[in-house]
Amino acid sequence: MPQKRRIMLTVSYDGTAYSGFALQESTPETIEGKLNEAIERLTGEKTLVIGASRTDAGVHAYGNVVVFDTQSTIPGDRFMFAMNHELPQDIRITHSREVGADFHPRHCNTEKTYEYRIMNTQISDPTKRLYACHFSMPLDIDVMNEAAAYLVGEHDFTSFCNAQSQALTHVRTIKDVTVTRRGDEVVISVTGNGFLYNMVRIIAGTLMQIGRGRGGPSEMKTILEKKNRAAAGPTAPAEGLFLIKYEFLDGIPEP
Amino acid sequence: MPQKRRIMLTVSYDGTAYSGFALQESTPETIEGKLNEAIERLTGEKTLVIGASRTDAGVHAYGNVVVFDTQSTIPGDRFMFAMNHELPQDIRITHSREVGADFHPRHCNTEKTYEYRIMNTQISDPTKRLYACHFSMPLDIDVMNEAAAYLVGEHDFTSFCNAQSQALTHVRTIKDVTVTRRGDEVVISVTGNGFLYNMVRIIAGTLMQIGRGRGGPSEMKTILEKKNRAAAGPTAPAEGLFLIKYEFLDGIPEP
Repeated sequence: MPQKRRIMLTVSYDGTAYSGFALQESTPETIEGKLNEAIERLTGEKTLVIGASRTDAGVHAYGNVVVFDTQSTIPGDRFMFAMNHELPQDIRITHSREVGADFHPRHCNTEKTYEYRIMNTQISDPTKRLYACHFSMPLDIDVMNEAAAYLVGEHDFTSFCNAQSQALTHVRTIKDVTVTRRGDEVVISVTGNGFLYNMVRIIAGTLMQIGRGRGGPSEMKTILEKKNRAAAGPTAPAEGLFLIKYEFLDGIPEP
Repeated sequence: MPQKRRIMLTVSYDGTAYSGFALQESTPETIEGKLNEAIERLTGEKTLVIGASRTDAGVHAYGNVVVFDTQSTIPGDRFMFAMNHELPQDIRITHSREVGADFHPRHCNTEKTYEYRIMNTQISDPTKRLYACHFSMPLDIDVMNEAAAYLVGEHDFTSFCNAQSQALTHVRTIKDVTVTRRGDEVVISVTGNGFLYNMVRIIAGTLMQIGRGRGGPSEMKTILEKKNRAAAGPTAPAEGLFLIKYEFLDGIPEP
C-alpha cells in the first residue's frame, strides 16, 4: 500500500455562493465541502481537508491554505491542475505541493494579511458590488490612517470582536494597518498574527465611521481601551473582505 | 394633464443574471424589462424605454443610454435616485436628465466605446471570472496592436459579423482600437460609429488568436479582405465585454 503523503493547496475563491469555508451539516455549499468532494473524485479517498482560515459566508480569499493526506500517486505539484478540473469555477487552486506529514496550517507561527475593500463612490458599480462594500459618503483616508495606527502592536481587541467569540484570550498583535486609495476604492490592509471573530470587519466598520468624520482619529484609542464591543462601529459587510495571504514564519516543513 | 417630458438615463449593469438588454417574451430577466418595471412603480405609467444599445446576454455596461416619456412631475435629475431605489443592485442609474422630446438615442450621430477584458493568467481569478474572459496562453500585445491597426477606418466588416446579421450594410468606421495591459488583464478598447452583431467579440477572439502567435499581424488584413465570417477567429465569450460609453456627437437637444 502506498505511503500517506500530506499535500498543501493554496486556494482562491469567490465566497458569494458559499455559506463560508467550514463544513456545515445543513448545506453542501461550503468551500471545505467542495474541496473534499473534488479530492474524493480525484483519488477515490474520503477526505477531510484542514483549512488555515475558516472564512465566513460571502468572504473571498486569494491565499487560503489547506492540507490533506492521500495515498494517491498524483505528484504534489499536479494536484493544482487536477483539482481545478474538478472544482467549480468560483474556487481555484493556485499552488500545490507535498509537505512534511506534521505540517498543520493552524498550529504554526503565521502572519495573515486581509484587505477590506470599500467602493467609495456616490453610485455603486454593479460589477463590483459582490467584491466591495459600497460607502457613498466621502472618506478621509489621512484620518483613517491616523486612527488605524492606534491598532498596531499587541492589544486586547475585545472591542473589535464579535460578542459570541469563544476565544480564550482577546490579545492579538497587529503588525501593520494601512488605508490607501486604489481607483474608486478605499482599501484597508491589515497584517497580524491572528484575528478574532469578525475582527477585520469591525475594524473596517469603525474606520469608516471615523473616516466620515465621527470623532477624531483618537476615538480609536478610546474604543480600544473600553474593551467593549458596543464601543466600536458596526461590523462591515462580508463582501468587502478578502483573505489575501498567509505567511508561515518558521517555513513549511519538507516531506 | 401635465405635459409629456422625455427623460434620459445613463445605465450601468452587471449583465450576468440577464438574458440581455432587449425585452423578450420568454423571460422577465432583461435590463429593459427591469427598467420598465421600475419606472412603472415610480410613476404609475406603463412605459417602454428606448435603449441606445441592445447588449447581449451576459454583457456588461457602464454607459448605456435609455430614454422614456413621462407625465410625472419628478424632476429629471431626481430620477437617478428614485430609480436606484426601485432597481435591483446589479442595475444602477448613474445620471438622469430631461432632454428634448425628439431625442432618440439610436437615431443620432454617435461614437461608442467598448472594452473587451481578458484575464491573461495561468489560473483564473474566481472574483473576476464573470467580468473577463480567461485566456491562459501568453499574449503579445505589440503584435495585437499591430494587427488591430488594420481595423481602423471605414471597412466592410463582414468577416467580423455574426452570420445571422440582418444589417443592410456591413460597412462601419472604427476610429480607434488599442490593446493595453492593466494589471493581470489585457484590455482591448474599440471606438467606432456603430458595431455589427457580435463584432467586438469576434474582433477580440481574432486578436487573441493572433496575439498567441497564430499568423502575424497582417493576418488581420487578410481576414478583413476575405469578407467571410469563417476567416476570422471565434466569438469571444460575453462576460469579457463592457459597453463603456456613448458619445452623441451632435449634442443632446435640451427640453
